[in-house]
Amino acid sequence: MARKKRVYFFGPKGAEGNAGMKNLLGGKGANLAEMCNLKINVPAGFTITTQTCVDYFQSSSRWPTGLENEISKNMSRLEKEMGKKFGDPVNPLLLSVRSGARASMPGMMDTILNLGLNDISIKGLIEKSGNEWFAWDSYRRFIAMFADVVLGLDRRLFENAITDVKKRTSVVADTDLELASLVDLVEIFKKIVKSNTGKPFPQKPEKQLELSINAVFSSWYNKRATQYRKMYGIPESWGTAVNVQAMVFGNMGKDSGTGVAFTRDPATGEPRFFGEFLFNAQGEDVVAGIRTPLSIDQIGGKLPDAKKDLDRIYKKLEKHYRDMLDIEFTIENKKLYMLQARVGKRTAEAAIRIAVDMVKEKLITKNEAINRVYPEQLDQLLHDTIDPKGDVDVLTQGLPASPGAGVGKVVFTAEEAIEKAANGEKLILVRQETSPEDIGGMNAAQGILTATGGMTSHAAVVARGMGKCCVAGAEQIKISDKNSLFIVGSTAVHSGDWITLDGSTGRVILGKAQLVKPKLSRHFNILMGWADKTRKLKVRTNADTPQDAKIAREFGAEGIGLCRTEHMFFEGDRIVAVREMILAETAKQRQKALDKLLPMQKKDFIGIFKAMEGLPVTIRLLDPPLHEFLPKTEVDYAILAKDLGVSVVDLKERASKLHEFNPMLGHRGCRLGMTFPEIYNMQTRAIMEAVCELVKKKVDVRPEIMIPLVSHAEELSKARRNVIAVADAVMKRTGVKVKYSIGAMIELPRAAITADRIALEADFFSFGTNDLTQTTFGLSRDDAGRFLPHYVESGIFPSDPFVTIDREGVGEIIRIGIHKGRSVKPGLKIGICGEHGGEPGSVEFCYQSGFDYVSCSPYRIPIARLAAAQATINGASGPTSGKSVKNKTRK
Amino acid sequence: MARKKRVYFFGPKGAEGNAGMKNLLGGKGANLAEMCNLKINVPAGFTITTQTCVDYFQSSSRWPTGLENEISKNMSRLEKEMGKKFGDPVNPLLLSVRSGARASMPGMMDTILNLGLNDISIKGLIEKSGNEWFAWDSYRRFIAMFADVVLGLDRRLFENAITDVKKRTSVVADTDLELASLVDLVEIFKKIVKSNTGKPFPQKPEKQLELSINAVFSSWYNKRATQYRKMYGIPESWGTAVNVQAMVFGNMGKDSGTGVAFTRDPATGEPRFFGEFLFNAQGEDVVAGIRTPLSIDQIGGKLPDAKKDLDRIYKKLEKHYRDMLDIEFTIENKKLYMLQARVGKRTAEAAIRIAVDMVKEKLITKNEAINRVYPEQLDQLLHDTIDPKGDVDVLTQGLPASPGAGVGKVVFTAEEAIEKAANGEKLILVRQETSPEDIGGMNAAQGILTATGGMTSHAAVVARGMGKCCVAGAEQIKISDKNSLFIVGSTAVHSGDWITLDGSTGRVILGKAQLVKPKLSRHFNILMGWADKTRKLKVRTNADTPQDAKIAREFGAEGIGLCRTEHMFFEGDRIVAVREMILAETAKQRQKALDKLLPMQKKDFIGIFKAMEGLPVTIRLLDPPLHEFLPKTEVDYAILAKDLGVSVVDLKERASKLHEFNPMLGHRGCRLGMTFPEIYNMQTRAIMEAVCELVKKKVDVRPEIMIPLVSHAEELSKARRNVIAVADAVMKRTGVKVKYSIGAMIELPRAAITADRIALEADFFSFGTNDLTQTTFGLSRDDAGRFLPHYVESGIFPSDPFVTIDREGVGEIIRIGIHKGRSVKPGLKIGICGEHGGEPGSVEFCYQSGFDYVSCSPYRIPIARLAAAQATINGASGPTSGKSVKNKTRK
Repeated sequence: MARKKRVYFFGPKGAEGNAGMKNLLGGKGANLAEMCNLKINVPAGFTITTQTCVDYFQSSSRWPTGLENEISKNMSRLEKEMGKKFGDPVNPLLLSVRSGARASMPGMMDTILNLGLNDISIKGLIEKSGNEWFAWDSYRRFIAMFADVVLGLDRRLFENAITDVKKRTSVVADTDLELASLVDLVEIFKKIVKSNTGKPFPQKPEKQLELSINAVFSSWYNKRATQYRKMYGIPESWGTAVNVQAMVFGNMGKDSGTGVAFTRDPATGEPRFFGEFLFNAQGEDVVAGIRTPLSIDQIGGKLPDAKKDLDRIYKKLEKHYRDMLDIEFTIENKKLYMLQARVGKRTAEAAIRIAVDMVKEKLITKNEAINRVYPEQLDQLLHDTIDPKGDVDVLTQGLPASPGAGVGKVVFTAEEAIEKAANGEKLILVRQETSPEDIGGMNAAQGILTATGGMTSHAAVVARGMGKCCVAGAEQIKISDKNSLFIVGSTAVHSGDWITLDGSTGRVILGKAQLVKPKLSRHFNILMGWADKTRKLKVRTNADTPQDAKIAREFGAEGIGLCRTEHMFFEGDRIVAVREMILAETAKQRQKALDKLLPMQKKDFIGIFKAMEGLPVTIRLLDPPLHEFLPKTEVDYAILAKDLGVSVVDLKERASKLHEFNPMLGHRGCRLGMTFPEIYNMQTRAIMEAVCELVKKKVDVRPEIMIPLVSHAEELSKARRNVIAVADAVMKRTGVKVKYSIGAMIELPRAAITADRIALEADFFSFGTNDLTQTTFGLSRDDAGRFLPHYVESGIFPSDPFVTIDREGVGEIIRIGIHKGRSVKPGLKIGICGEHGGEPGSVEFCYQSGFDYVSCSPYRIPIARLAAAQATINGASGPTSGKSVKNKTRK
Repeated sequence: MARKKRVYFFGPKGAEGNAGMKNLLGGKGANLAEMCNLKINVPAGFTITTQTCVDYFQSSSRWPTGLENEISKNMSRLEKEMGKKFGDPVNPLLLSVRSGARASMPGMMDTILNLGLNDISIKGLIEKSGNEWFAWDSYRRFIAMFADVVLGLDRRLFENAITDVKKRTSVVADTDLELASLVDLVEIFKKIVKSNTGKPFPQKPEKQLELSINAVFSSWYNKRATQYRKMYGIPESWGTAVNVQAMVFGNMGKDSGTGVAFTRDPATGEPRFFGEFLFNAQGEDVVAGIRTPLSIDQIGGKLPDAKKDLDRIYKKLEKHYRDMLDIEFTIENKKLYMLQARVGKRTAEAAIRIAVDMVKEKLITKNEAINRVYPEQLDQLLHDTIDPKGDVDVLTQGLPASPGAGVGKVVFTAEEAIEKAANGEKLILVRQETSPEDIGGMNAAQGILTATGGMTSHAAVVARGMGKCCVAGAEQIKISDKNSLFIVGSTAVHSGDWITLDGSTGRVILGKAQLVKPKLSRHFNILMGWADKTRKLKVRTNADTPQDAKIAREFGAEGIGLCRTEHMFFEGDRIVAVREMILAETAKQRQKALDKLLPMQKKDFIGIFKAMEGLPVTIRLLDPPLHEFLPKTEVDYAILAKDLGVSVVDLKERASKLHEFNPMLGHRGCRLGMTFPEIYNMQTRAIMEAVCELVKKKVDVRPEIMIPLVSHAEELSKARRNVIAVADAVMKRTGVKVKYSIGAMIELPRAAITADRIALEADFFSFGTNDLTQTTFGLSRDDAGRFLPHYVESGIFPSDPFVTIDREGVGEIIRIGIHKGRSVKPGLKIGICGEHGGEPGSVEFCYQSGFDYVSCSPYRIPIARLAAAQATINGASGPTSGKSVKNKTRK
């Protein structure tokens, strides 16, 4: 086998690499090569491959054989190309050494500039630049940078030395330092290096280069890089490339300068060249923000030729890359050099506009435009946000559990929230953690703040469903219900005080912050239109109220995939009737309570069916264990006892019998329907009476009744017979004949494994992936807080399976379920409900696995629509491996 | 298609059916035919097929076409054969009509005798028998029986009439009734029928027969039959056959009689003809126990020829059937008629002896002998039982949770049990329900009684593991801890009162009942020896102490399949150290507590390894959630607080943080090992130090370390690395090199589904089917009490999946796990631990699925050994369908 080529040369006359070689050359190296191939003026240099970095670590931090030789050859070529010599006392070649991984890791890797300076070559630099101050300034910068990045010395040693000199010479700014001071500093810096490392500052340029290359390699494992990789799921195995490039100087005087720019506005997507420039400066100066930069247009006044060149080049590059770019450049003595060109980061708004505009400009296809927007980003557009221009007083930080922002007065109980909201007050509900009883209060509030609970806690899940902002698990908050206040450190926040929540970042802010309304642009609608035409998966919503159903429809929902009937149980006086039902001791008592609930449920269903006219509505019969509805307070018990005509003691005795050790695995779902068929019968009757009433009024209603927590075909069979019996009776009584279907929620491993038997009794399957994940992993979402974060952080799990579907395990069980189900009923309709239905990676999984639809909370519908379109476009490449990179780069 | 033959004739000259036609003719019909084919003297008759019964119900209780004709033809043949005519005034043929299903359903179906009697044929009966009293007695019996069974009248109407007549004539016994009274009674009975049905008693013999046949059909659905079928898992679809047979009369005088007998002793299995006989009596009289029967040998004195015939026939039958038989016969005027021959029911002791003896007698093969004993029966032999001869005072009834019997004084706390047992007292521990903390007390007691909890509650599972008797869920018991007593109805039982538990039946008995010791016979050992040579599956035990290990080894255990390290945590003072570990706030505190535990665990392991020398011992690292070990009482908290030097309030605060909503799915198993690696490290060190110490002393130790609750290969990989690191360190320190293996407990669906990845990190798999059943079904064993009994009773589940493995769902997941595991590691050792390992049906499943071994509690090892042998023998017939008949008939 031929020896691996480890070093790739590039220069204005062309390059050995190109933009397609990112894996080998890293993003920066590949783009530099590409620009060279486009004959754009780039300072020449060479790229050491990422593979070399990998090999370096595999051979215990030693250079692989041949690398030294290749570098040496490329250095010679570079010297020739630039007409300069490394370490030369007359015309020295100076270098920058930069990292460059496959994926952009901004600020993660360290850079060395001005490499090659020493006590000899400084003379050449003075000679060539004719600027002694600049040369000494460069030298002292280089020593400090080298000492910090390569030798690992504390940066402050050098900063303090500068401060001392400035004090001594009464100078304030670095730029005002006298030449003599700079010369002094070089000597002082060399001494610092000597005394702290025991060795003199390396004067040999080759040694400087060798150490710097190794430092770049090593930076792949520094703390920032490691964390960044973890955050964005970048594999450790990739390694980084090293770019060695001839220096050009923007700080050579008035005809020089440096700038960064975007080829379009990265905030709005407007098609205008947009950037900043500093005369007589080096790259860092722009980013560091020490001097106020000029707008990019201002170059033209002083350096019209360079500006003309720049305009020509950015357009050429954008056309070539067919995307908005982020570029860096330097002008040295009027001559423009391009230093960087890469696809630019952008807001959701900009991503959409640029994608749509580029289709119009015929730069990209509609499919490419759809793929250009990361679905998760859309979330930014759908909620109120805190005005980034305003000042805010951040009290503490919790988990960003449900995006958006909310401003309101603090309340501590759901009742108070409901009562005060009725008077038009804006409120933030603050709870230790929420329970199903709080739903009314959550709905009435602008946002929810909890002290405990994670991203998948009750508060978080319900809030996301409502599109309401939520900060969960703000652990520093100590709530005192007794005193109606909460404390963070030494700050007390009382009931009635204003606070602001930022559900997108987790910030809890004192007082009323300024909010910005979301606006869905014309471009958004165009893009979503294309997505809808492209996608094959239907997108439904999880909605429990007519109000949610309406919002969801506005966001493009094509039906309801999950309507949780129990959420209706907490409204108003219903809970009393619900509790009567639960604590009934005889079937007769239970029926009496159910009779009270029937008209209320019927009314709810009428509202929901109307809101979803013409679209399918899947209603899940009662699912949670009954004890979730039990009275919580003494007052509740007293009311109920009076209502039922029994003593509080008796009532509590009955309630205590409902206690369960593992409610998740307890007496719930269709198990309730088996032991108390009268409950499901009431719900079926309410649904069918609502349907028949509307059909009589010519409303197009498409009900689907879903049986939860099926584990055995026989359960479904029995539930189905009961539903049909009740439905037949209602239709007979009303004289209306309607179509409806009966399906199973597949949320237990056994249901999926025996799906061929269950499918015989089912008109459709809906995978409840929340519970399926819990049972497949044997993992309670509510209890996972003590170890799941550790699991994800330390890489035991590649990601949180409650956020992104676990394709390897849960996914395999789903595939078995689909395969077995359709083996006996080829056209079986299959959907997903639960949180995963709105997560782009999981949507892709659903498409690949043959689902008919996904269902998600209203505010995630656009995300699911876009993700579904992308899945269709990318589906041709076949099912993916099961591992996915989080926040993956747009293609 | 030829019309189905519905009626099969049999008679002493031969029969149309045979013993192989049980499905069609029912057990009784097939055996009658078989005897006829053997030319044994059986009263002639015919059998209407079971299929006819099925067809009868399918055509709305009407006779299928052709049946009438076939019956009529067979009646003619029967009249010819017997030389009598149905309803004849001179020589009438009388019939018995009996049910006879495929499986024996004793007492379930009603019988009609003397059918064909009416006001005319009575004359013939008088004529032929020369016994007027007998004839009228037969007639009045027939009317009453017919009225009861066929017409559905209350039996007491007739009994009262007899009582009246007896009073009037001053007679005490039925046998002393005067002839005139019998004649009167016939008239009175006919009037009762007329006035209660509106129709006269049917005089036409053909009508009597038709109605009787229909009554037999209908009895298939009577309450007793339905319940029996449910109890023994007999399908409703089978139907019953009807046997119509010529009557013979044992009550014809001194030369007549009737008897029942077993060809060998059904209690002990001794090879002696064993039965009872009554002169001048009909079959019912023997069973009814009105007169004291004679021993079978006493026939010989008066009726030597008949006795000689009987001896010849029973031997012939036993030889023919190659099994111990239960026979019925009648002698009519010195002539012997056989009425029934079927395989006889027997005790476990008898089953074993008969099987072994018959092999010696060359009647059956060893394989047949193995198949002759129902494994579950062996349980009878392994525990103390209550002397069936003694009188007992049953207080209440609970669930028969763990077999055997126990006598002791009532105690209400584990502490008290331990304390008093130390003084040699015998105790019964009575608890509302038990928790892991009670284990010491359970071990100290003779038996455990709980008020709540089912067959799979903590008390039941642990007691079975200990081989200790347990009555669980005795719901009538109200415990008052405060007053140290429990109440059932109006009876109070105080601490210190004697009670007796019958764990095999669930009886709770006041006072000290007489117990009988178990004895394992020579025959038992012979049979088990054959079983051991036959079986392919290894049988290991679940044992947590050296003592259990020893018992298990005596019962034939071939290693330990599951040693639960946490059971050791409750002994003595250890719990204090365990609690210190749990509530430690720093790793240092935790390490300190672990250091205290290390020597204790090491000592346990030494004991267990010694007891299992030469055999493999699988040790599971810590599994339960930590809060199971938390202090329960204020005193516990006070002790611990002092120990840790913190306040009780602080301690409770820490403890409360460990609360879990669904502990089953919480922070347990290897999740503990991931977040607190120091715990597993301590356990590994204790194991390996014990191993090394013993190896130095030349003890043959074969440790297998098992990681519980694995859901992802990465967990096992990490745990494995840690175990290896600790083991290497111990081996290095001690200078001993030992072999050990590391495996995974497969008890979560995800582990089975991803077994191909997990197997790469595992030396063995052990399926934890308890938890796997819980997660696959999404069903908490502890909470299932409110609906699982209903599920099993109403047939939603074919059986309790915690008792018999659910082959369709859980079984399929296991098969996937085995297939995937062995796809990457063909020789992967696979076992099962958990309750199913000792259940015969599940053992069969394990054999068929390719397991290497099962593991069960010590007292179930013989059961598993026998079941494993049967599985091997019957395995050739391939995997079964997944549904199994409970208590299935021996083959």
